[in-house]
Amino acid sequence: MNRITDIKIALVQMSMSTNKEENIKSALSKVENACSNGANVVCLPELFASQYFCQTEDVQNFNLAESYNSNFIDSFSLLAKKCKTVVIIPFFEKRASGIYHNSAVVIDSDGKISGLYRKMHIPDDPGYYEKFYFTPGDLGYKSFNTSVGQLGVLICWDQWFPEAARLVSLSGANIIFYPTAIGWHPDEKEEYGENQLDSWKTVQRSHAISNGLYVASVNRVGFEENDNGSGIEFWGNSFICGPQGSVIYEASRTKEEIIYADIDLDLLENTRRNWPFLRDRRIDSYTDLDKRFVDKKPK
Amino acid sequence: MNRITDIKIALVQMSMSTNKEENIKSALSKVENACSNGANVVCLPELFASQYFCQTEDVQNFNLAESYNSNFIDSFSLLAKKCKTVVIIPFFEKRASGIYHNSAVVIDSDGKISGLYRKMHIPDDPGYYEKFYFTPGDLGYKSFNTSVGQLGVLICWDQWFPEAARLVSLSGANIIFYPTAIGWHPDEKEEYGENQLDSWKTVQRSHAISNGLYVASVNRVGFEENDNGSGIEFWGNSFICGPQGSVIYEASRTKEEIIYADIDLDLLENTRRNWPFLRDRRIDSYTDLDKRFVDKKPK
Repeated sequence: MNRITDIKIALVQMSMSTNKEENIKSALSKVENACSNGANVVCLPELFASQYFCQTEDVQNFNLAESYNSNFIDSFSLLAKKCKTVVIIPFFEKRASGIYHNSAVVIDSDGKISGLYRKMHIPDDPGYYEKFYFTPGDLGYKSFNTSVGQLGVLICWDQWFPEAARLVSLSGANIIFYPTAIGWHPDEKEEYGENQLDSWKTVQRSHAISNGLYVASVNRVGFEENDNGSGIEFWGNSFICGPQGSVIYEASRTKEEIIYADIDLDLLENTRRNWPFLRDRRIDSYTDLDKRFVDKKPK
Repeated sequence: MNRITDIKIALVQMSMSTNKEENIKSALSKVENACSNGANVVCLPELFASQYFCQTEDVQNFNLAESYNSNFIDSFSLLAKKCKTVVIIPFFEKRASGIYHNSAVVIDSDGKISGLYRKMHIPDDPGYYEKFYFTPGDLGYKSFNTSVGQLGVLICWDQWFPEAARLVSLSGANIIFYPTAIGWHPDEKEEYGENQLDSWKTVQRSHAISNGLYVASVNRVGFEENDNGSGIEFWGNSFICGPQGSVIYEASRTKEEIIYADIDLDLLENTRRNWPFLRDRRIDSYTDLDKRFVDKKPK
């Protein structure tokens, strides 16, 4: 692996139509655009090939899934190779009949697949019925070796769990990418909206701080209607923050846009020297983290 | 344990002189003041009985330490009983010759000791030479049963470690108190000061968010000189935030003051119902959290 000093990353904030082919075409075009602007790594939002179908529980939606080796992935591999760029492709993975995952594949700049991540933490909240669709990931937390160094990928709900960020960090990642699909319920936005968005940003910035790495979170935008005449207003606000949690760039809440940031591995090294949290973890004392709750067992 | 609906907590932000008796007297008076204002729990800053002696490594400073059963603790027990208030007393603990801890004792509102916490994560940075003085804690992470419910205590450097907050949360705490001594090096303040303070706030707010509990962090104020003509400007900014990370109240950066917040356990319950992170932790997948780094062993 080369010592990389200059990495430019790009996050593609986009909206999705109900037409899968159109979404993929749009994503390919945006990735190519990011590459032509000098990006060495481009990341797309969670499940970008479709609208966020988890707003309802409908078995027909399993038709949207793709296998790990589908043409869908191939088209991005070809583009990655052509542009010499690493591309992170979230997708609805069909692993077998009855086993589906919310996944992301990392394609290296030679078009070869660096690895697959399957979302570990699966939500189930009103409008986010993911437990119906996705089997929880079984590949664990890892960094992927690419031509621009070690990259980690986690997906959406994972972002609320410091354990996940820590484990990706311990596997050697310099950047954690969070492809995401999160937004407001229209009837909650006015009262809780700002606080929800702020909490979402804060918890991800904290992963950058406590692990001394970059965090890059990419969300979709636009209102997607559900069957009940309501829907979700995806809040965009894709952002990239540095290893002390400072936001380098953040996108709007409503517009399609590609945002960029330069990754400075010297800053990362310097931050970890000055804030040596990884040195001081009390690994002898964390056993109970694999417990649900530290209470007395019922008789 | 009673079901408590109204808890008022108080954090005593104070500055310290070089006179230990004076500092203790001042702290006793401030605790009494907080009680008279209706506080049910009062928490003092880390090592409040002295200036922050860890700026230098000097064996004479071990003279400042107190045993767990000293008169020093007794005076606060008497006050706690008199005021019917829970009091959290950080102190420099002498456990035996050659074994010292950075500790905090939780005194219940009947004056009896609920328990002892010994700082688990010990820093060693320029001006914060704590590894010289303090043996890392060996009592683990816990909640203390008090007349106002389960309270957790962590100390300063612990605040950068999400593992510590999680483990206190899993032990049942509704509030985590962070007695603290943190500030700026004068030669870093202008360039890095705002970012350092923001990172410190952000990481603690994130513990509130990912665990759905209250966080109450209490720092000292004032400039304390060291032997080299420099020193630390302790940045105050003690704050209390709710279970979604919103700051309820924060203190100034320079003044002694007591800040208060009402703890709403219904809000805590409601937050955890709506943001069910504790439900979804992948406890089958966290094994490597007890590793230093997930790399290949050198041959």
